Amino acid sequence: MHRIVVDAMGGDHAPDEIVRGAAEASLSLPGAEIILVGDAKALGRLLPSMRHDGARVRVENAASYVDMDEKPGEALAAKPDASILVAAKLVAAGEGDALVSAGNTGASVLACAKQWKLLPGVKKAALAAVYPTELRRGEKDDPFSLILDVGATVEATAEDLVGFAVMGSAYAKLVSSNKRPRVALLSNGTEPNKGPASIVGAHQSLLAAADINFIGNIEGLDIPRGVADVVVTAGFTGNVVLKMLEGVSETVVRLARYAHKERLAWRLGLIALSSAIDQLKSITDWQQYGGAPLLGFAHPFIKAHGRSNARAVTNAIKVAHKALSGDLCGAIAKTMNELGAT
Amino acid sequence: MHRIVVDAMGGDHAPDEIVRGAAEASLSLPGAEIILVGDAKALGRLLPSMRHDGARVRVENAASYVDMDEKPGEALAAKPDASILVAAKLVAAGEGDALVSAGNTGASVLACAKQWKLLPGVKKAALAAVYPTELRRGEKDDPFSLILDVGATVEATAEDLVGFAVMGSAYAKLVSSNKRPRVALLSNGTEPNKGPASIVGAHQSLLAAADINFIGNIEGLDIPRGVADVVVTAGFTGNVVLKMLEGVSETVVRLARYAHKERLAWRLGLIALSSAIDQLKSITDWQQYGGAPLLGFAHPFIKAHGRSNARAVTNAIKVAHKALSGDLCGAIAKTMNELGAT
Repeated sequence: MHRIVVDAMGGDHAPDEIVRGAAEASLSLPGAEIILVGDAKALGRLLPSMRHDGARVRVENAASYVDMDEKPGEALAAKPDASILVAAKLVAAGEGDALVSAGNTGASVLACAKQWKLLPGVKKAALAAVYPTELRRGEKDDPFSLILDVGATVEATAEDLVGFAVMGSAYAKLVSSNKRPRVALLSNGTEPNKGPASIVGAHQSLLAAADINFIGNIEGLDIPRGVADVVVTAGFTGNVVLKMLEGVSETVVRLARYAHKERLAWRLGLIALSSAIDQLKSITDWQQYGGAPLLGFAHPFIKAHGRSNARAVTNAIKVAHKALSGDLCGAIAKTMNELGAT
Repeated sequence: MHRIVVDAMGGDHAPDEIVRGAAEASLSLPGAEIILVGDAKALGRLLPSMRHDGARVRVENAASYVDMDEKPGEALAAKPDASILVAAKLVAAGEGDALVSAGNTGASVLACAKQWKLLPGVKKAALAAVYPTELRRGEKDDPFSLILDVGATVEATAEDLVGFAVMGSAYAKLVSSNKRPRVALLSNGTEPNKGPASIVGAHQSLLAAADINFIGNIEGLDIPRGVADVVVTAGFTGNVVLKMLEGVSETVVRLARYAHKERLAWRLGLIALSSAIDQLKSITDWQQYGGAPLLGFAHPFIKAHGRSNARAVTNAIKVAHKALSGDLCGAIAKTMNELGAT
C-alpha cells in the first residue's frame, strides 16, 4: 500500500477540489492510501459529503497554510505548522511515501528541500514541467514533452545538467511508458561546442552515457516542435522559456493587434484568429495537464497546477502512485550510481 | 560626408539586391557616400544598369566572400580577402565610417571583432535584434523593441550587462527618437534578487545609473508585451529567446494541430487560424525590419537580414547613416565614461 500525502490547503480551489480529488482517488486507486493534510475541522466536514473509501483516506491536522502569493522563504519561516511543511515532514518521517500539492510552487519546493534528502549521487533537485507537442511518444502515444529544470535551481553545472538528464529520462520512461526517451540540451546552436562551458561539458558527458538516449543540442524553436522528449536546461533559462511558452497565445493576439494597426488587410486575419485563441489558451496552459514532478529527492513530489480542479488532483495522485509503483527514485539513484562509477 | 561601406556579396540575394539597395540610397541620402565591397567585375556590370548617383557610389574589389552557411571562424581564416573582412578593414583603416552587411551573421561579427577596437569603457560588444510589439514608443511611434545581446556573447558579467543597457539605450534614443527608453533586465522573476549573480549585480548598478531609465526585471512573456523598449540579457539566453519569438507562428500552428488531433471541436479553430498564419509569419520575421546593430565597437555596424531585398538594404544604410549623424558611438563612450567615473 502506497501512502500518498496531499496538501489539502494548497491551490486556488483548496480545500474543496483537493478533497474531492482525493476522495475520487481513494475509490479508483486500490493500491493507495491518501493522507489529507490541513485544517482537520474543515476537512472533517468536507470529506463525509463526498463519495470516498473511508478505509483509504484520512486527515492529518495542520494549523496554518501558505497562501498562493506569499513569498516562500518568509512564509515557511513564519508558519512552521503550514500544511505543506507538515506534509513534507510526514514523508520525511516515514509516515508517507510521496507528496502531492497544488499550492504555492516555491513554498512546496522549499519545504521538500528543507525536509527531504537528495538521492545518492544527485547534487541538485530539478522541477520539471510538461507541455503539449504535435509529436506523440512512447507506448501511450503521450503528446507531452518534459522540460527541466524550470525553477528549482538558477544556474547549473555540467554535472547538474547530466543529473537533470538522468532524472527526466527516468520519469519519461515510467510515466509516458517511453522506452528510450530522446534527451536534448537546450543551447544556442546544435553544434557540440555551442553554449556556456556547463552545456559543452554536459554534452560530452551525455554522449558517453550509455543509459541516456542523447540526441544532442536543440534550439528554442525545437521545444514546441517536440523534437526531444526531455529538454534539459538550467533553471534560469528553463523558467524564461516556460513563461514564453505559456504566453504563446497571448503573444499571437498581441502580434495580431500589431498587424491590425499596421495594415487594413490584416483585420481579417485578426478576426479569424480571435475565434481560435480561446481554444489555444486552454491548450497552452501546460500546467493543467496533471502534475509536474520535482525530481532528485528520496521521495516523489508531484506539483499540480494552482488552478487544479478535482480531476487534476486525482490525476496528480495517480502520477505519484505510478512513481511509487515503478520505483522512480530507485531508478534515478541506480543510473546516477552507474554514471558515477564510469 | 559619411562613408558607408557595404558588403555587396553577403545575403541570400547578393549581389543584385544589395547593389540595387545601395544605388537607391545614393539617390535618397545626400549626406552619404557608399562603398560597395565585392567582386569588382560583377559589381561594375550591375551598377550601371541601375539608377544611381555615380558621384556617391563606388566599388572596392574583394576576391572572395563568405557563404551564408559557412562556419564563421574557418571561413575567415581560409579567406583573408573575403568581402566582409576587406570591408571591415576599410573602416578600421579610416577609409570608411560605418559598415552594413546582409551576409553571414557570425562572420560579420567576427570580422568586426578582429578588425575594430572596442569603445573606451566597453568590455564586450553586443548584437541587438528588433521585434514588433503592440505598444508604440518614441516620437516616431516606433512599434519595435530592442533585445540585446542575441549572439555576440555567450555569458555576460554584471558589468557586461550594464554596458549592454547603456548601448541599447543610446541606440533606441537615436534610432527610435525615444527620449527615455525603458530598459529592463530579462530574469526569472521581477524581484531585484531574482536570477544569477550577474543579473542581481547589474540590477543594483542600473538602479544607480542616472542616465538609464531602468524599469527593473521583466519575465519572458513581457518581451512580446512590449513592456520594455530595450531588453538586456546575456547572449545565450537572448539567442534562445529570439529563436522562440521568431518561431511563434510555427508554434501556434503546431499547437493547433495538437488540438486538432485532440478534439473534433478544435478543427474549426485550426481552419480559422490557418488563414491568419501566413500574415503572422511575415510579422514575426523580426529581422525583416531594417537592420540590427552590433554595438560597442568604435564604428557602427548594421546587420541586415540575410533575406534582405533592395528596400531592406536601403533601410539598413539609412540606419547606419543615422548612427553616424547622431554620433551613436560617441554617445555610448560618453555614458560608459560617466558610469565608470561614479
